[in-house]
Amino acid sequence: MNSSLAQAVLAGDRLALARLLSRVENDTAEGRAALDELFPLTGRAHLIGVTGAPGTGKSSLVNQLAVFFRQQGQKVAIIAVDPSSPFTGGAVLGDRVRMKDLQGDAGVFIRSMASRGSLGGLATATAQMAQVFDAAGFEIVIIETVGAGQSEVDIARLAHTTLVVEAPGLGDDIQAIKAGILEIADILVINKADRPGVESTERALKSMLELAHPVQRIFLHHGQMMTLAGEEPTAGLWIPPICKTVAPDGSGLPELVQAIEKHADYLRQSGDWIRRDRARLEAEFDLLLQETLVAQFRAHLTESRLQSAIASIHSRQASPREVLAKLLEEMPR
Amino acid sequence: MNSSLAQAVLAGDRLALARLLSRVENDTAEGRAALDELFPLTGRAHLIGVTGAPGTGKSSLVNQLAVFFRQQGQKVAIIAVDPSSPFTGGAVLGDRVRMKDLQGDAGVFIRSMASRGSLGGLATATAQMAQVFDAAGFEIVIIETVGAGQSEVDIARLAHTTLVVEAPGLGDDIQAIKAGILEIADILVINKADRPGVESTERALKSMLELAHPVQRIFLHHGQMMTLAGEEPTAGLWIPPICKTVAPDGSGLPELVQAIEKHADYLRQSGDWIRRDRARLEAEFDLLLQETLVAQFRAHLTESRLQSAIASIHSRQASPREVLAKLLEEMPR
Repeated sequence: MNSSLAQAVLAGDRLALARLLSRVENDTAEGRAALDELFPLTGRAHLIGVTGAPGTGKSSLVNQLAVFFRQQGQKVAIIAVDPSSPFTGGAVLGDRVRMKDLQGDAGVFIRSMASRGSLGGLATATAQMAQVFDAAGFEIVIIETVGAGQSEVDIARLAHTTLVVEAPGLGDDIQAIKAGILEIADILVINKADRPGVESTERALKSMLELAHPVQRIFLHHGQMMTLAGEEPTAGLWIPPICKTVAPDGSGLPELVQAIEKHADYLRQSGDWIRRDRARLEAEFDLLLQETLVAQFRAHLTESRLQSAIASIHSRQASPREVLAKLLEEMPR
Repeated sequence: MNSSLAQAVLAGDRLALARLLSRVENDTAEGRAALDELFPLTGRAHLIGVTGAPGTGKSSLVNQLAVFFRQQGQKVAIIAVDPSSPFTGGAVLGDRVRMKDLQGDAGVFIRSMASRGSLGGLATATAQMAQVFDAAGFEIVIIETVGAGQSEVDIARLAHTTLVVEAPGLGDDIQAIKAGILEIADILVINKADRPGVESTERALKSMLELAHPVQRIFLHHGQMMTLAGEEPTAGLWIPPICKTVAPDGSGLPELVQAIEKHADYLRQSGDWIRRDRARLEAEFDLLLQETLVAQFRAHLTESRLQSAIASIHSRQASPREVLAKLLEEMPR
């Protein structure tokens, strides 16, 4: 059965696209059907995750990246995910700043997403929205997450290429290590690189790269990533380059885009493109599985039985695990 | 059946406590049995969550809090959760800094926890470790999380009282709003309050409190939380106070501890203590449910059937949802 919504999206109808994204975000039956129909057309877009601590200027950088990709003639979608904020003001303001450079351009589509109940739900919805854009012919899908916690890491893992954005002067080195999102970085960006402290941020990132890639003993040599032996890293290994940018004036952007494209080449040649693609689809499957199984379990329980079970936990007569074991025994086989 | 491990923990054996915490973290059968045995003894400890962005000096503050509670004769447990860091260096260093003030004190137990595979697993393990400490007679259990993302929020929700720690100069106001962890704050702490910029941080937090509690129109008046009418907030409502501290020299600590105790009183009088307790137990139940149902599903599938199903997703013959529906149809009833 063909859904007219999916067909309208494929025909380039922006209103239909906006409507489908909402259906997907709200997980409606119509959204599900359209997604299943579009799914075979996915797998072509380059998904770029952008994450980093607050204050690093991510939104501005994403904006500039979109402008740059547009100039190359590529269609760009931006999914701005803000999993924790209860305030919408920030997101709205961010969008307005963005629109200035990109408005009226039919090759760009920007979509903000706030929390959707559960964390799993948010990651699932983000993955599925990226699929909609992918099927609709957007070559570049940028997934921007606010913050630097586990949920951002989970969402960034959806991407082929993940940019971790830092900025000078956002706290000392040990804290940066603790934040620990560097493990997911394919490219490190020091944004606001015209600010004081850029050298110490670079030093901190460099020493963390050395920790993460001890065999290679990377160091920066005239802005190039080199091994201790003075050679460029071998083809089989990707060592995250450090790019310095100043988003408002666009300096460093060409080098950053070059690094992104180089990473895409690396992914395709090494087989990692397919591996990441598969890992992403499997993660989506796992989340759907969880949601579905829990819904089935609930459907087999009367509300009063569930309440009495929960009450015995509240009164500490039985542990959550003991109560769960009992409820599972009562399930029809 | 009584577990000797649980009994040894109840008898005050610190080595047994350390061993049980490891069993619980690794989710072993022995750990599960001991937990079920200890569960009826839980529900007495005051769980205090401490969260905030990197660079705010949380660990140092938690250390000082522990010293303060110890001086009041209370047993204190600290669970330091670092969900994202792949590096252990930071945690080890943090522990060493802590130990200086607290070492040799049998009334204090510090436990670091790194990521345990899934996010759900980490939150479950944290909740269960808190239960062990609770049953073992620790009156205060501090759950410290590094970072400010959703996983930290989820873990902080385990607590009765949640402190959100800020520090001057960690980024501009809009970014602070975007970080959006203020919704979970019972007490706001401006640590490093001897640094420049403390006034603007306080102003930013105040205006965010006004956004979050618009009816009350809170403002700071000689360090007291007041409504616009000049009265203290009514008993039925808790408005997060703003406490300023300088962790290394302990200034502001007495006021912070007073605020924590006042919040505990508020929770008990308003009924929120029981409500939060129940919400925590229900969240633990939900996580266990998910883990268990997924494990059962997997047990019913042969590895080759699962692989062929996943392969049809990889090749984009069928969407994750379509494949899941097919697998569920094949399940024995």
